[in-house]
Amino acid sequence: MTVDINDVEKFVAAELETSAKYLTIPSVSAQGRGIKETVTYLTDWFQDLGADQVKVFDQYQNPAVFASFTGNSAKTILFYNHYDVQPPDPLDEWESDPFDPTVRNGKLFARGVCDDKGELMSRLAVVRYFQEHGGLPCNLKFFIEGEEEIGSPNVGKYAQDAAEYLSCDAVIWEGGGKNEAEKFQIIAGTKGVASFEAEVTTAQSDAHSSLAPYLDNAAWRLVQGLATLYGPDRKIKAEHFYDNVQPLSPYAAEQVAQQEPDFDTQAVVDTFGVSHGKLPVAKPFTAVMTEPTITINGLSAGYEGDGVKTVIPRRAKAKLDCRLVPGQDPETIVGYLQDQLVKNGFPDIKLHFLLGEDAYRTNLEDPFVQLGKRVAAEVYGQDQVVLVPNQPGGGPMLPFFEVTQAPLMGIGVHYAASTPHAPNENIRLTDYQQASGYLARLLEEFSQQA
Amino acid sequence: MTVDINDVEKFVAAELETSAKYLTIPSVSAQGRGIKETVTYLTDWFQDLGADQVKVFDQYQNPAVFASFTGNSAKTILFYNHYDVQPPDPLDEWESDPFDPTVRNGKLFARGVCDDKGELMSRLAVVRYFQEHGGLPCNLKFFIEGEEEIGSPNVGKYAQDAAEYLSCDAVIWEGGGKNEAEKFQIIAGTKGVASFEAEVTTAQSDAHSSLAPYLDNAAWRLVQGLATLYGPDRKIKAEHFYDNVQPLSPYAAEQVAQQEPDFDTQAVVDTFGVSHGKLPVAKPFTAVMTEPTITINGLSAGYEGDGVKTVIPRRAKAKLDCRLVPGQDPETIVGYLQDQLVKNGFPDIKLHFLLGEDAYRTNLEDPFVQLGKRVAAEVYGQDQVVLVPNQPGGGPMLPFFEVTQAPLMGIGVHYAASTPHAPNENIRLTDYQQASGYLARLLEEFSQQA
Repeated sequence: MTVDINDVEKFVAAELETSAKYLTIPSVSAQGRGIKETVTYLTDWFQDLGADQVKVFDQYQNPAVFASFTGNSAKTILFYNHYDVQPPDPLDEWESDPFDPTVRNGKLFARGVCDDKGELMSRLAVVRYFQEHGGLPCNLKFFIEGEEEIGSPNVGKYAQDAAEYLSCDAVIWEGGGKNEAEKFQIIAGTKGVASFEAEVTTAQSDAHSSLAPYLDNAAWRLVQGLATLYGPDRKIKAEHFYDNVQPLSPYAAEQVAQQEPDFDTQAVVDTFGVSHGKLPVAKPFTAVMTEPTITINGLSAGYEGDGVKTVIPRRAKAKLDCRLVPGQDPETIVGYLQDQLVKNGFPDIKLHFLLGEDAYRTNLEDPFVQLGKRVAAEVYGQDQVVLVPNQPGGGPMLPFFEVTQAPLMGIGVHYAASTPHAPNENIRLTDYQQASGYLARLLEEFSQQA
Repeated sequence: MTVDINDVEKFVAAELETSAKYLTIPSVSAQGRGIKETVTYLTDWFQDLGADQVKVFDQYQNPAVFASFTGNSAKTILFYNHYDVQPPDPLDEWESDPFDPTVRNGKLFARGVCDDKGELMSRLAVVRYFQEHGGLPCNLKFFIEGEEEIGSPNVGKYAQDAAEYLSCDAVIWEGGGKNEAEKFQIIAGTKGVASFEAEVTTAQSDAHSSLAPYLDNAAWRLVQGLATLYGPDRKIKAEHFYDNVQPLSPYAAEQVAQQEPDFDTQAVVDTFGVSHGKLPVAKPFTAVMTEPTITINGLSAGYEGDGVKTVIPRRAKAKLDCRLVPGQDPETIVGYLQDQLVKNGFPDIKLHFLLGEDAYRTNLEDPFVQLGKRVAAEVYGQDQVVLVPNQPGGGPMLPFFEVTQAPLMGIGVHYAASTPHAPNENIRLTDYQQASGYLARLLEEFSQQA
């Protein structure tokens, strides 16, 4: 049997009103809203769909929900999603209530519909479709965490604790969707991140700036020290920083090079209102795929109010993050930066590691990724599929790889103007239906793969 | 007749309780408190002392009070003081009410007693002494402003407007007092200051830090640009910045060199809790006398709260000031810094000039300063007098020089532990009496000088 994609698309469209109830629960992890309610909603939903097993892991902060379904083959797919969403603010910029899912012009608007409740809706509609059409082609597992929008602080521990439940042959991640060139993306990795603070204290009290000829200034020390680490050439000047960077495989590099022309520089310039009207790098897509970064997230020192205060600040702080690629360990990287500051004459600048997440990339030539690509070419068109080595941001892929030892890839239901994290978050209904049809085909093909 | 210094000292000590009523008025310019009340108090006081003329200049913000007295010679001294004081906060660190002048252990405690109501008290007690002992040796004029503690924003305009009233042969300024080596200081100048802001805007909205590979970061631009202007070598790297710096005269340089060994480095380290336990320069006193500076007063960009926010700041700001020496024009100097930023590749860092004050130095070999020194040597002891080319901070000396074309020198009643601007501001009664005796002798000698 070969699943009829049109049939699946019609089915999930008919199911939409039921599925969209999930969007009415304000599960805002940053504000601790609706967590319990959503966990109950999810367990009921899984049970209603006939899951063999539904389990709530709640040993850390927000519970994670696990469910499993038995299929017609021995193969198993694990889905990763998260039920928490970003706060809906600013509310007055929404054209409809963020927790009252609304269809306008073929688009479904609601907080979380893109990131990433819409994906779970699609995935579970496909589950119901199969159950009403001869059963699931393979075993399915779901792991839905509730802390993704606050940095997934516990997902690694949850995954470790749930290891025996998570065994699978492949993992389907969140994300993906269509890019600005309307191509369907299969995203097989994440970048890593290290968040840290830099702090200098030159004295126990501020001083009048007339004493500047003989007193050190914490703000100057911070500025001078940080500037030794990163210059206008956009290179990070810390010994060993780039030592273990794993380059893209030739195949992955080829995928990236093919996608570079699709990168819509003007859209980025317009979206952020970039002051110079252009970007500072020639190949932005290649850069975001391959380059580790150091970003000052915030600066703070001395007097920041209105008018004038002629003070020498005793303390200065910066908040920073490094975006990392596979091979770079977050804490080690911060150590290299601290060592370099010492070497550069700034031992007084103390770096404090706050949190980190490792980068991870599934090999783009892995049979599962290649299957995903082949099925997508069928559904979306031969030149309408791209393989992306990693998303620009972080995500807890590595802990799931460590537990499952399985290939991971992210696919999704959204498009370039879905505006996740912002007002009027939306997906197009055609994308939602198409992605559901694609998923059904993928599961079927996967279950038949040797 | 030669005035009897002991007699003057006894007289001002006996007058102290009456004089100290001036300290009970909370004339806090930063809070707009007690201004009217103090102006009335001063006009009454001057009239009560028999001034020929008392005039209130009130065309700008806080009024300035002028008074003149006729003496027994044709010569005229102008006194500059200010009636406003710093806010008394933190109140709970005061051992007695800041506006209830209190004597403990031979010290008089009150807000403003050092800076600088105590000086006017002494000066007016000397006026009364002379009036009760044959009249003033020369004409005296007083100009008391009410905005010194908020940066004297209008004193230049007040001085211009009052020009016809201010004509004189010499000006006695506020300040001076005894240094940490217990030497009596005659301070004949001020440093200048330019306050300005630096601002960079790279975009119209913040962005997620995962986009750092291809987006500029306002905080990095600010840090990198500022670091090109000033490094750990403490030199300001802007073309022309030092071009017009007027060096000390050989005589003034000699005075400074003589005072360098008296500079109490350990006291500075202890007062501010300097982190390294030492100062970054070998000759701190020479540095503060002669070096222009660039100080970051404050830094502000992006996320400054608790925890982590992985954002690329669209805007970054710094507040800065330059302390200047004679020859350096505040606005021109800020222009040089802006030009250098452009040359260094940072045209996006915009400097905004906020306010400035010129430096000014009276020639230390001027007969008036030399007279001040000679009389001080008599009163305080041969090696107990120092000539200081300029105070570390700013002050509106130049506008008064421009109006009077007369030499200016600052003398005072305080000592190194007077803690102006801080809780428990105090002067020693012996210093108060001695400074009053000194002033009486100085006026007498001055009136007899050719």
